[in-house]
Amino acid sequence: MSWRSLVFGRRLANRESQARRIGWFEGVPAMGLDGLGSSAYGPEAALAVLLPLGAAGLGSIGWVIAPVIALLGILYLSYRQVILAYPSNGGAYTVAQANLGERGALLAAAALMTDYVLNVAVGISAGVGALTSAVPALHAYTLPLCLGILVLVAVANLRGTREAGWLFALPTYLFLASFLFILGLALVRATASGGAPAPVVAPAPLAAGTAGAAAGWWLLVRAFAAGCTAMTGVEAVSNGVSAFREPVVREARRTLTVICAALALLLAGVALAAAHYQVGAMDQTRGDYQSVLSQLAGAAVGRGALYHVAMTSLLAVLCLSANTSFVGFPRVCQLVARDGYLPRPFAQADRRLVFSAGVTFLTLTAGALLVAFGGITDRLIPLFAIGAFLTFSVSQIGMVVHWRRAGGEPRRLAINAVGAAVTLAALAVITAAKFVQGAWLVLLAVPAIVLLLRATNRYYARQAARLAPDATFAVEEHDPPTVLVAYEERTRMSDRALRFAMTLSPDVVAIHLTGLSGPDEEEDLARLRAAFERDIAAPLTAAGETAPRLMMVPAPYREIDGPLLELVAKIDAATPGRSVAIIIPELVLRRWWERLLHGRRAARLRDQLMAHAGPRLMVVSSPWRA
Amino acid sequence: MSWRSLVFGRRLANRESQARRIGWFEGVPAMGLDGLGSSAYGPEAALAVLLPLGAAGLGSIGWVIAPVIALLGILYLSYRQVILAYPSNGGAYTVAQANLGERGALLAAAALMTDYVLNVAVGISAGVGALTSAVPALHAYTLPLCLGILVLVAVANLRGTREAGWLFALPTYLFLASFLFILGLALVRATASGGAPAPVVAPAPLAAGTAGAAAGWWLLVRAFAAGCTAMTGVEAVSNGVSAFREPVVREARRTLTVICAALALLLAGVALAAAHYQVGAMDQTRGDYQSVLSQLAGAAVGRGALYHVAMTSLLAVLCLSANTSFVGFPRVCQLVARDGYLPRPFAQADRRLVFSAGVTFLTLTAGALLVAFGGITDRLIPLFAIGAFLTFSVSQIGMVVHWRRAGGEPRRLAINAVGAAVTLAALAVITAAKFVQGAWLVLLAVPAIVLLLRATNRYYARQAARLAPDATFAVEEHDPPTVLVAYEERTRMSDRALRFAMTLSPDVVAIHLTGLSGPDEEEDLARLRAAFERDIAAPLTAAGETAPRLMMVPAPYREIDGPLLELVAKIDAATPGRSVAIIIPELVLRRWWERLLHGRRAARLRDQLMAHAGPRLMVVSSPWRA
Repeated sequence: MSWRSLVFGRRLANRESQARRIGWFEGVPAMGLDGLGSSAYGPEAALAVLLPLGAAGLGSIGWVIAPVIALLGILYLSYRQVILAYPSNGGAYTVAQANLGERGALLAAAALMTDYVLNVAVGISAGVGALTSAVPALHAYTLPLCLGILVLVAVANLRGTREAGWLFALPTYLFLASFLFILGLALVRATASGGAPAPVVAPAPLAAGTAGAAAGWWLLVRAFAAGCTAMTGVEAVSNGVSAFREPVVREARRTLTVICAALALLLAGVALAAAHYQVGAMDQTRGDYQSVLSQLAGAAVGRGALYHVAMTSLLAVLCLSANTSFVGFPRVCQLVARDGYLPRPFAQADRRLVFSAGVTFLTLTAGALLVAFGGITDRLIPLFAIGAFLTFSVSQIGMVVHWRRAGGEPRRLAINAVGAAVTLAALAVITAAKFVQGAWLVLLAVPAIVLLLRATNRYYARQAARLAPDATFAVEEHDPPTVLVAYEERTRMSDRALRFAMTLSPDVVAIHLTGLSGPDEEEDLARLRAAFERDIAAPLTAAGETAPRLMMVPAPYREIDGPLLELVAKIDAATPGRSVAIIIPELVLRRWWERLLHGRRAARLRDQLMAHAGPRLMVVSSPWRA
Repeated sequence: MSWRSLVFGRRLANRESQARRIGWFEGVPAMGLDGLGSSAYGPEAALAVLLPLGAAGLGSIGWVIAPVIALLGILYLSYRQVILAYPSNGGAYTVAQANLGERGALLAAAALMTDYVLNVAVGISAGVGALTSAVPALHAYTLPLCLGILVLVAVANLRGTREAGWLFALPTYLFLASFLFILGLALVRATASGGAPAPVVAPAPLAAGTAGAAAGWWLLVRAFAAGCTAMTGVEAVSNGVSAFREPVVREARRTLTVICAALALLLAGVALAAAHYQVGAMDQTRGDYQSVLSQLAGAAVGRGALYHVAMTSLLAVLCLSANTSFVGFPRVCQLVARDGYLPRPFAQADRRLVFSAGVTFLTLTAGALLVAFGGITDRLIPLFAIGAFLTFSVSQIGMVVHWRRAGGEPRRLAINAVGAAVTLAALAVITAAKFVQGAWLVLLAVPAIVLLLRATNRYYARQAARLAPDATFAVEEHDPPTVLVAYEERTRMSDRALRFAMTLSPDVVAIHLTGLSGPDEEEDLARLRAAFERDIAAPLTAAGETAPRLMMVPAPYREIDGPLLELVAKIDAATPGRSVAIIIPELVLRRWWERLLHGRRAARLRDQLMAHAGPRLMVVSSPWRA
């Protein structure tokens, strides 16, 4: 078993790709992780913006989270319709392509890609934030932990994650159960105590509000924009409708309902409990950092077994929410590549049926983001959600066009029109609110990606035009080619190459390059020529065959390709209309260390000849297994 | 102009290799740098051993350096004879090969290689020690400075150093002039002051002797062993005799005389001056480290212009003494590789006529040593000199055999016999004295290298036996091969490959693999086949030609090579005795970024076919310039 099979698993045949169809119970973990995981960093991001207000800011959190939940409701209704209209694949790229043409589709693709990359970085960094909250000793290793988890997730996805249903279901439901219980308990205690409950473990004390800071509308808008990150991932169900079993639309819609309802409950619960227990956001670069959910759990149930179960499930959910990007990103890239906007390898399934080009690219870009931002969630958040809301908007606008074309569905058209308007407005607000903190980076990246996708497409089109054949195939030459054989000295290997050359053409020339190893080389060219005549040419001539000739060609600069190409040019001029084939005998090595002992002359010669070949040259490798 | 030409210079032809012949004045810098540079770290290494004695140890330094100088005299006489006996190349490897056979030659080669690598590491680290003595602020950057200088020296040597005579002469003679003046002045002042001169800048105070430490014989022996590092490099002249102009032997001997005399003067001067001025060795890891020569120069002439000229020339001499390894190591490797004991690339001159495999290998191993020992001279010294004295001994024993064979030269035989006995004794002493400090590493490395060299030679011999051809060449097949053409879809590129195939054989099959991109790929195979029949087969048949066939081959695991190799095996079985050629159309890309857009299917297919090819397969690359 090779190391590859050990790490990545055995190869899979095309026919093994039929995935098991799933219902809503499996659908929630499979497609809801991204959305549900957002509840861990969305409210926290909003609280972080309110930090300058100190304890007073907690009073405003309701005003921030309420519109987020309302927006979530509108998105829920909109995406129910996407599922209905595109029951095979309702991803934004597909919807935009069907209704808005190339520009819309590329905009959707660029926005999706950007947010998939950010989702990996944010999910993992938030997961590590949960981990370092529970185990403060790990705080110093934030970035290495992030990168380690990234590599683990990447390797798991290069294996393929099709059989890992339970791996997703367990932490998802554990997370939902434990946090809904914790938040419920916290709110019951808060009500019972008249709004000022005593925490089991006190949360970090809030700093006093900065002098002069007030809950101005701009601060609230910025907090809302930050809180909108909680909605990323809601579109996942519409992307994967084809995975559901019959009745497809019902199962998919039920999944969407459960996800949106659970997310809304979590958001509301976190907002209320944070206000009652006076839990604010903390700076993740501080050694005593505690995430909001960690503080809330500690305040509600102390740091006992339940706390650790909840935090462990949270870590798992956040890491796995990064995983949803590893499913979605390569899939989008495959679609885009198939349409010729991304390099072709993105559309090619590897030995495990995984689109490994996409997985690798996602890993590298997310890793670069984690390194650039030090693995700190709070620094990544301003870049996030813009891509998601851009995707939402393009998708909803596409749906409006869809219903207009379909006609006769004014109610459905209205819902998606409202969705489009609201998401566009939210996009404008989020972009304005986060512009200085990093959103400008996304606003540069998305158009750049669109341009790159178009350029790629244009390149392929030009290439295809250049390669387009004439209407019918015509034979241009009938004579066999002149065959040159790279000839160092006589061996079994060179004999084999000469024999093969003689089956191809009566016109065979063995080429020996002189001076290849440098000025100190002592070569007995007379001996070489005599042996060639005696052992090869003479017996063949005696047998009535046309014997190959031996030609000595000086290589004054110790390059092999230069003299050979000059020779080929001469032959081309002498025999116009005939091809030339160069046969390079090549030793096939079985063990890696043999490469050290043989140099790369044959491979280098082949590469150089290919790079500088004229229109009538063929390079033939004659393998010899030593 | 490419970046390669810019960094490494234009390519050189074989005929440009004739080096200018040199006389003794140029010979001293060209071949004496290694030996003269040793004077900087040899006495310092001896003083470092005496450190536990404190100031008292300085009284013993004369007893340590005197036998070193005596040994140098014996070596001088011995090597004068080597020059006489081997006026073209008297390197230890050549002498041992001529007189002691394979084992002796390999032992000499291994010892030489080990010491060349160590010489680079020690020379550069001592040079950086001189630099940080003069500019203490740089002390924290010892290792990066070492590696930076190593890279500079390596790049200079990859360019080739043939035109750099003045670069070597200037610092060498500056170093000799300034330090002989400084040491002379110091000794005159010491004599004038009755043995206790007042230093201009006081050297670092010596710690009191460790309680109980006494100048026991073992400590003196260890100091002597450390001081013997001052003799490394003395053999350089005998290696390069062929570089001298006529009369070769006289010029070479004069060069050896100047080098040995200057080295002896320097050693004696340093020992006396150190004793008079109470200068001891310091720990190089300390931030206020001052090399012995730096302290002596400061004590004698203060830290003025002369001090800085002297230290600058010292830095240059030490770095350039590392450079002598870059001349010697690749040269030895070339000889050893030409005899089949090292991989062939070591014997191949590159575009600058440099043996770049040797230069690269030396850079990597010396760099690894510098990193492993932190760039601290004192830690490297115990490994050093063993290789040199092993080389001396093997060479002298070889010379004894040489004179015995030549006969009638009892006086010459006696001199080399004394040389052999003395160097062997010194080798034993050095090994014993340094064993625990690191010499064991060399004692492991040298036999390991010898074994590796022998194994390489045996491998080549086996390989040559397997490749040895039958006495006369015999034709085994006459029929043209079956030609397969990898066929994705019809393009100009595939047309070209098919046309070429038809000149080779009437039996051409276009192979289209299905399912290559994965289960989601939608292929219209019927359309592909119809187009092939309509545009290629039908017109050819109408014109009376034998048209190629189209064959669809499923690739269930999305590998290209597996199905093709299976097909080849079937064809082999059906047409025994006939070869099979596979033509792979390959797009030749002009710009690096185009590689990103095309994947590596053609290259990967070729590699896989070559790796698993049967005895009768040829792989043909058909280049197409886009």
